[in-house]
Amino acid sequence: MDLSGENLVAGAPARGTGPQGTGPTFRALDPSTGLALEPAYREAGAAEVDAAVVAAEDAFRSYGGSTPGERARFLRAIADELLALGDAWIERARAETALPLARLQGERGRTVGQLRLFADLLEEGSWVEARIDTADPGRIPAKPDIRRMLVPLGPVAVFGASNFPFAFSVAGGDTASALAAGCPVVCKAHPAHPGTSEMAARAIGRAARATGMPAGVFSLLHGWAHEPGLALVRHPLVCAVGFTGSLRGGRALFDAAMARPQPIPVYAEMGSINPVFLLPSALEAGGEALAQGLAASITLGVGQFCTNPGVLLGVGGEALERLTGEIARRLQAAGPGVMLYGRLCQSYAEGVERARAKGARAVGEAAAETAPGRASPALLATDAAHFLEEPELWQELFGPASLVVAARDVAELERVAEALEGQLTATIHGSEPELRQHARLVEILQRKAGRLIFNGFPTGVEVGHAMQHGGPYPASTDSRSTSVGTAAISRFARPVCFQDFPDGALPPELRRANERAILRLVNGAYTREGV
Amino acid sequence: MDLSGENLVAGAPARGTGPQGTGPTFRALDPSTGLALEPAYREAGAAEVDAAVVAAEDAFRSYGGSTPGERARFLRAIADELLALGDAWIERARAETALPLARLQGERGRTVGQLRLFADLLEEGSWVEARIDTADPGRIPAKPDIRRMLVPLGPVAVFGASNFPFAFSVAGGDTASALAAGCPVVCKAHPAHPGTSEMAARAIGRAARATGMPAGVFSLLHGWAHEPGLALVRHPLVCAVGFTGSLRGGRALFDAAMARPQPIPVYAEMGSINPVFLLPSALEAGGEALAQGLAASITLGVGQFCTNPGVLLGVGGEALERLTGEIARRLQAAGPGVMLYGRLCQSYAEGVERARAKGARAVGEAAAETAPGRASPALLATDAAHFLEEPELWQELFGPASLVVAARDVAELERVAEALEGQLTATIHGSEPELRQHARLVEILQRKAGRLIFNGFPTGVEVGHAMQHGGPYPASTDSRSTSVGTAAISRFARPVCFQDFPDGALPPELRRANERAILRLVNGAYTREGV
Repeated sequence: MDLSGENLVAGAPARGTGPQGTGPTFRALDPSTGLALEPAYREAGAAEVDAAVVAAEDAFRSYGGSTPGERARFLRAIADELLALGDAWIERARAETALPLARLQGERGRTVGQLRLFADLLEEGSWVEARIDTADPGRIPAKPDIRRMLVPLGPVAVFGASNFPFAFSVAGGDTASALAAGCPVVCKAHPAHPGTSEMAARAIGRAARATGMPAGVFSLLHGWAHEPGLALVRHPLVCAVGFTGSLRGGRALFDAAMARPQPIPVYAEMGSINPVFLLPSALEAGGEALAQGLAASITLGVGQFCTNPGVLLGVGGEALERLTGEIARRLQAAGPGVMLYGRLCQSYAEGVERARAKGARAVGEAAAETAPGRASPALLATDAAHFLEEPELWQELFGPASLVVAARDVAELERVAEALEGQLTATIHGSEPELRQHARLVEILQRKAGRLIFNGFPTGVEVGHAMQHGGPYPASTDSRSTSVGTAAISRFARPVCFQDFPDGALPPELRRANERAILRLVNGAYTREGV
Repeated sequence: MDLSGENLVAGAPARGTGPQGTGPTFRALDPSTGLALEPAYREAGAAEVDAAVVAAEDAFRSYGGSTPGERARFLRAIADELLALGDAWIERARAETALPLARLQGERGRTVGQLRLFADLLEEGSWVEARIDTADPGRIPAKPDIRRMLVPLGPVAVFGASNFPFAFSVAGGDTASALAAGCPVVCKAHPAHPGTSEMAARAIGRAARATGMPAGVFSLLHGWAHEPGLALVRHPLVCAVGFTGSLRGGRALFDAAMARPQPIPVYAEMGSINPVFLLPSALEAGGEALAQGLAASITLGVGQFCTNPGVLLGVGGEALERLTGEIARRLQAAGPGVMLYGRLCQSYAEGVERARAKGARAVGEAAAETAPGRASPALLATDAAHFLEEPELWQELFGPASLVVAARDVAELERVAEALEGQLTATIHGSEPELRQHARLVEILQRKAGRLIFNGFPTGVEVGHAMQHGGPYPASTDSRSTSVGTAAISRFARPVCFQDFPDGALPPELRRANERAILRLVNGAYTREGV
C-alpha cells in the first residue's frame, strides 16, 4: 500500500500546516535499526485540528442519530477493512515498533474482535440503560411519564498509544467505543507509528464510505509536537477525550480539559506499577512455575505493558531470596529487547539508574552493554522500610524491570499496600486460606486498584463484558470508567430523559412497544416487555 | 429541641475553630423579619474539617463493607428520625427560609421518600451492575474468570443547598445516595439554615447509633466562609464531592478538586435558565391555561428553583404578545415574596437591573417598592437577534423572573437553541405534529439539556428511577450523572473486577450462587440465576 504521509481530515488528505516552532515533517524510525522509514509525515497544525473537529461536529448531526444497526454495520466493516490490509499492516507495524510478528497478529485479532464485540452490543441494544417511570395522572400533583436513556456526547478526541499500535491506537478500544456510542472521532496518532496509523485510518475511511457514514465521522492527525493535541482537547466542539500513555502526557491533557470554559471528561489511562503480593505459601511452594510466570510477565513485549508487574512484594527471607534469584536468572537469560522507540529506551535506562541511585540494588549480574534501542531486563531489590520512605521507587518504570520489596512480616506488607497510589491492577499469590486470613490486604487493594488478580499475572487484559481496565489516580484520571471491554461504551454517553413525550417522538428504545426487546427498568422492575 | 450551635464531628459536638479572617460565630436570620435566630453557630475551621474527614475514612473501613441490608436499615432509620423531628423541624426551616408550610411538608415527604427509595434499591441489589465472564481454561491462552461490580469510592463531601433545606441539604439526595453507595459523608451545611441542618444531622447521628453504624459515617460542618469548604474538597482523603448551588461556587469547588494532586469527581449542579419553546400552535391555543402554568412555574417558591423557566421563546406576533401580557398580569398579581436570604434577594434585584441595562425591557407595570428581603416577580422581553448578541442575558437570574424572547420564525428559534449553553431542562409547548415537524429543534435541545419536557413545566423534579437531573456544563459539572433519583447512587461508586478469585473470597454479589438473585450480566446475557 502506498502511504501518503498526509493527515486525513474527514476522509480527505490534508497537508499538515505544522505547529509553530517544530519541523514540518517527520519520519518513523525502525527501532531495531534506527533507520528512517518512508514517507515523511506532515505535522498537523491548528488548521487541521479545527477542520477535523468541525467536520466531526457536522458528522454528529447524522451519525449521532444513526440506528444501532447502521453503527454495527460500520464497526464490522472497519474490522473487515483492517483484516483486508493483510500482511502489509503487520509488516509496517513491525517495522515501526519492533514488536514480534506473533504478538502483532494476536493484537490484530483483538482489535478486530473488539470492533465486532461492540457491534454485537449495539444489536443487543440494552447498553443504553433505558429506564421508564410511567405516569400517574391521578396522583396529586399528577405524576408525569419519564423515560431516560444514554445518548452520545458528541465529537471525541482519541490519542493513540505507542505500545499497542493496533488495539489502543487509531482503530483501537477508544475509537471503537466512541464510534459505537455514536460519537465521531478525531484521532491523534502516536508519532512512533504513523504508517500503521495511516493504514488504519484509511481502512476506517473506506468502511465509512461503504456503509454510508458521513466523512467527518473519523479524522487522523499526525505529529510529535504537543500543541496540536492540546488544541484538540481545548477545541470547544470536542466533548470528551480518550488517552493511553504516560502520566505526564495524560495529566497535561486532563489539566487542559479541566481549565476549559466548559470542562469535558478525560479518560486518560496512565499506567501503574501493578504490585504483586507474594504471600508466604506462594513463596514456599514458589519455585519454577512462579519464577517463570513472573519473569515472563516482566519481559512480555519488552516490558511495555501498562499492566507490567513493577513491584514484587513478600516477607523477606530465604524463600523470597531464592525466588528473586530465580527470576533474575530468567531475566538475564531473556536478554535485551528492542523497545518501541529510542526516547522510551533512554527513559528506561535512566529510570533503572535513578532507582539504583535511590537505594534499590541490582540483583544478578550487571547487564552487558547493549546496542542502541535495546533494553536489558533488570531486577532490583530493596526492603519495605526503604520503599515506604522513597516515593521515587513508586514511579512506573516503563520497560522490562521489576523491584522486589522485602517486608518484615505481613503487617508491613499491608502498610506498603496502604501507601500505594492508584493502580490498574494488584495481584496476590497465595493459598485460599491465606486469602481469607489476609482479608484486610484484599480490602486495601480493592481501594487501590481497578482489577484484583489471584494467583495469576497482570499482563493480558481480556476484552469482555466484565473487564475493568482503569483504576484510581494516577492509574487513570477517571476510576469510574474502563478503557477495555464493552462497559467502555458508556464513557462516551450521557443520560437524557424525556418527560411526557408522545410515543412517536421518543427514540425507539423508549417507545411503548420495545420492538427490539431491550432490557429496560420499568417502574423499578427489569423487563424486556413493552409498556 | 435544643440547638447546640456546634459542628458535629462523628456524632460529637465540636467547637468550631473558625476560618482565618472571619468571625467565629454567626446566626441564622429569619428572612421575613431580618431578625437573628438563636443559637449562635460556630464557624468550622481546618481542625474540624480534618477531624471529620479522618473520622469518615476510619468509618469507611467498616461502613464500606457493610451489607446492603445494614445500609437499608440505616437509611430507613434516618427517614424515621427525620419524621420524628415533627413540626419542630418544619418550624425551624420556615423560620430560616421563609418557605411556606405546605411546601416544606411536601419537601420533607420527598426527603424521607428518597431515603426509603434508596433502601429499597439496596435490598433489590442489582444497582451494583454485576458482570461475570466465566473462565475457559481450554482457550489458548487460557481465559480467566472475571467478575466486576461497583464498590463505594470512600468519604464524600456534600454541600447543602439553600433552596431545598431538606431535599438537597444535610439529609438530602447527595447524602442519601452517598450513604446508600457505602460512602461516609462530611456535609457542609448551607449557612442560611444552620438550625434545620443541625436537626437533620442529629437525626442522622441517632439513626447511626441505633443501627450500629460507625460514628464517623456522618459529620456536619457550619459556616459562611469559603475556606473550610475548599479545605474539605482539597483534603486528600475525600473521594468525591456533591454540590447544588451557584455557578461561581460550583466552579470554584470543581477547580479546587481538579487541581488536587489526585483529582476527584465533582458533581456540582449549578442551575440553568431552562428555556421554554412555545411553538405556534401553543401560542395560538395559548390563553389561560398556558399563561397560568408558566406564571405559576416562574413564581413557585419565589422562583428559587434550579429548574425555574428563565427564558420563554416563541415566534413574535400578536399571539406571543397576548401571552406575554397574560403572564405579566399574573406575575403582578402574585406580588412580592420573601427570598431565602438577604444576599440572594439583593442579587436578584441587581440581576433584573443588569438585564434591563443589557437591553431587556420590562413588561407590565414597574414593581412597587417592596420591603427588604422581598422580591417582586419580573417579566422581561427582548427579540431573538438581541438575545443572540448579548450573552449576559443567557445567565441564570435566580428568582421569580423570566425573559420572553421573540424570534422572527422557527428557524431563528433553532438558532437560539443552538446558541444556548448546557441546561438542566428544555421544554417545548406545541402539538404532536409540530414536534414531528421540528424534529431538528428536539435534536438540538437533546444536545443541550438533561431533561426534555413536552407540554409541561420544568419545575417539579420527580424522584424516581428514570429522572435525569443534571445537564451539560454549566448546568452541571458532570452531565453523565444525575443528582435526583436512584441512578444517583452510581456517582459515588466505581467498578472493580476480580480475576480468578475463589468463590468464598468474592463479594456476595459476584459469587456463583447469586443468593439474592440480583440481575447480572453473565457471559453477555442478563440473568438472575447462579453461575
